[in-house]
Amino acid sequence: MTIDEQLEFLKKGTVDLIREEDLRKKLERSTKTGKPLRVKLGLDPTAPDIHLGHTVVIRKLKAFQDLGHTVIFLIGDFTGTIGDPSGKNVTRPPLSREEIDANAETYKRQMFKILDPEKTELRFNGEWMDKFTAADFVKLCAKTTVKQILERDDFTKRMADEKPISLHELLYPLVQGYDSVALNADVELGGTDQKFNLLMGRNLQREYEQEPQVIITTPLIEGLDGVQKMSKSLNNYIGITEPAGEMFGKIMSISDELMWKYYELLTDLSVSEISNLKLQMEQGENPRNLKVNLAKLIIADFHSKDDATAAEDEFVKRFVQKEIPDEIDEKQIAAGTYALSQLLADTGLAASKGEARRLIEQGGVKVNGEKATAANADIAIGPDGVLLQVGKRKFLKLKSL
Amino acid sequence: MTIDEQLEFLKKGTVDLIREEDLRKKLERSTKTGKPLRVKLGLDPTAPDIHLGHTVVIRKLKAFQDLGHTVIFLIGDFTGTIGDPSGKNVTRPPLSREEIDANAETYKRQMFKILDPEKTELRFNGEWMDKFTAADFVKLCAKTTVKQILERDDFTKRMADEKPISLHELLYPLVQGYDSVALNADVELGGTDQKFNLLMGRNLQREYEQEPQVIITTPLIEGLDGVQKMSKSLNNYIGITEPAGEMFGKIMSISDELMWKYYELLTDLSVSEISNLKLQMEQGENPRNLKVNLAKLIIADFHSKDDATAAEDEFVKRFVQKEIPDEIDEKQIAAGTYALSQLLADTGLAASKGEARRLIEQGGVKVNGEKATAANADIAIGPDGVLLQVGKRKFLKLKSL
Repeated sequence: MTIDEQLEFLKKGTVDLIREEDLRKKLERSTKTGKPLRVKLGLDPTAPDIHLGHTVVIRKLKAFQDLGHTVIFLIGDFTGTIGDPSGKNVTRPPLSREEIDANAETYKRQMFKILDPEKTELRFNGEWMDKFTAADFVKLCAKTTVKQILERDDFTKRMADEKPISLHELLYPLVQGYDSVALNADVELGGTDQKFNLLMGRNLQREYEQEPQVIITTPLIEGLDGVQKMSKSLNNYIGITEPAGEMFGKIMSISDELMWKYYELLTDLSVSEISNLKLQMEQGENPRNLKVNLAKLIIADFHSKDDATAAEDEFVKRFVQKEIPDEIDEKQIAAGTYALSQLLADTGLAASKGEARRLIEQGGVKVNGEKATAANADIAIGPDGVLLQVGKRKFLKLKSL
Repeated sequence: MTIDEQLEFLKKGTVDLIREEDLRKKLERSTKTGKPLRVKLGLDPTAPDIHLGHTVVIRKLKAFQDLGHTVIFLIGDFTGTIGDPSGKNVTRPPLSREEIDANAETYKRQMFKILDPEKTELRFNGEWMDKFTAADFVKLCAKTTVKQILERDDFTKRMADEKPISLHELLYPLVQGYDSVALNADVELGGTDQKFNLLMGRNLQREYEQEPQVIITTPLIEGLDGVQKMSKSLNNYIGITEPAGEMFGKIMSISDELMWKYYELLTDLSVSEISNLKLQMEQGENPRNLKVNLAKLIIADFHSKDDATAAEDEFVKRFVQKEIPDEIDEKQIAAGTYALSQLLADTGLAASKGEARRLIEQGGVKVNGEKATAANADIAIGPDGVLLQVGKRKFLKLKSL
């Protein structure tokens, strides 16, 4: 790829890229020197369950790896072992060394479903933060002003709302930024909610006389509900270690609109390939089929193509072929035994006894979920009722009066 | 002394006492257990030249020592070795270990002019801050909120003026506060400009589950100019190691109003003794004599009573007896030689030649600073002129036309 092509490839689906000319310079230098870029992603040690929401940024890391660069996962064990010392945030309990190491292993197992272990470094910021002295901390804090740090959106909002901000919370973006200094990062990736922290790394590298990192943010994706950000706590997520069948079912449940976003951010399809699929839908293709296609692409990434096909088959068998609507019209008729074709004609499920016979012969009629084979079969109508189905969409339940 | 008397003694000349009931409790407990209170004063390691402005608070420490308590000088070497890492404050260069130790020795030498070395601890906050980890720092910072710390007057003002505050500046009050935790201080003293920082110690002790310290502030005193706070940089100070003669001269130069403030804050005189002196002045006592008295009291504290008397004698000899106003009227008369008594009568320095003779006989007339002895002495008036003095206040310079 030319540098221009590389830039296009890396820019796809990103929100911020600060700054493109810096990235170009770094890519050019890397090409010339053969020295891979160091591409950082910070990870919270408390949440080792990676879901598709996280993979948006991980796919972008993979794009860098595909171009030969080195990915660094930086696990924030320094902050992890502290937790929230003010005790106000119950979702941040301090973690033990063992828990953090176990979480790191889990991360690795999951990450390497997408990424190449050979081109990945796993690091912990405790490597340098545990050696940091109080004096180092004071010096680090001197690199920024109170005003600059309070400009982070959530701080600004909390100040305006007069909600307390613990002083230590101001230190965490600095630590995260300093991690980029310690790692000598060329690029840092993160969700759009991380933009401020990523820029902090860029600024601190300048302060410590390093070339500032390029920052790239990727969008947050909505979860299965299509409204809230995908997150474990909202239970609207698809975990990347979930069985293929689970993934398939969850993806089939999303809205058509969300499907296109997932296509863009969760598959390798190019922009033009996705446009082509959209065109097919406009021309009458059933969205369900496009969703099946999406589900299979995603599953293939985390399991295999065969698993994807098997998941589709299983899904079709369990849900599509046997599908019965939740709400079915009911009619009551006199108890007794009726010929099937007569029943279909009488209830309007077929236009006539003749059509009813044809439908039965074509295998288009089911009685209590079983395909009917004889047009003159005797159907007994009692208090439990009988479910009639014609084609895929017509259902009727008949009960005795 | 009863507890009530102790409280009165300790309260004299203070501005804030937070809170009196806490101090009473501590004094009572100390009396009962025989365990002295731990009374802290924080010192900046950059300014070892103690002047009278500092002694206001040191005298208060002495009051605690006189009641049997332990004084702790806490030298902020932790912050001293860092200096101002943002490099914006040129008056805070980082200090070497050697400089800090030398400064500490200088402090000791000066402090022990007032205080009892036996009841004094000299400590450095590096003892604990140098062992502080980054994690300890985060935990410390979690004990306060951004809002609380920005409430310090100078921060509030700088925020309002949109002047930058480096983030590390927010850490220093916390360190100072934590020092009280590390020292298990019962009382902390400081100038009124330290009130916020002293209260921080009180709060942090509560957070670290210690009994909160009592805080006492003493007023800042104006320097010799009577307007600006006494400070070395304004050169309006009296250093406590200055020679007695220097001290004497400087104290004699202050305004009458400032004299009363110095009496209150820089001497052991009780409130009623000072009132008595004020009454004397109202009844006609020359303020100069009261200033001499003040100068001698202060000198006796830092030198000796004999030194004080010697300084007075020296001062009188050099300045009072030979005192000549800066501005003296001049008259021109025909060059020539005149009898002294005639000159005095002609120029109006005496009402008549007879009075002139009497004044000369009483030793009340000087010619060029020398006492005249003969009424009919010949005085030659030329272009250089002759200075005539009658009594203490009448001066006239005569020159030839």
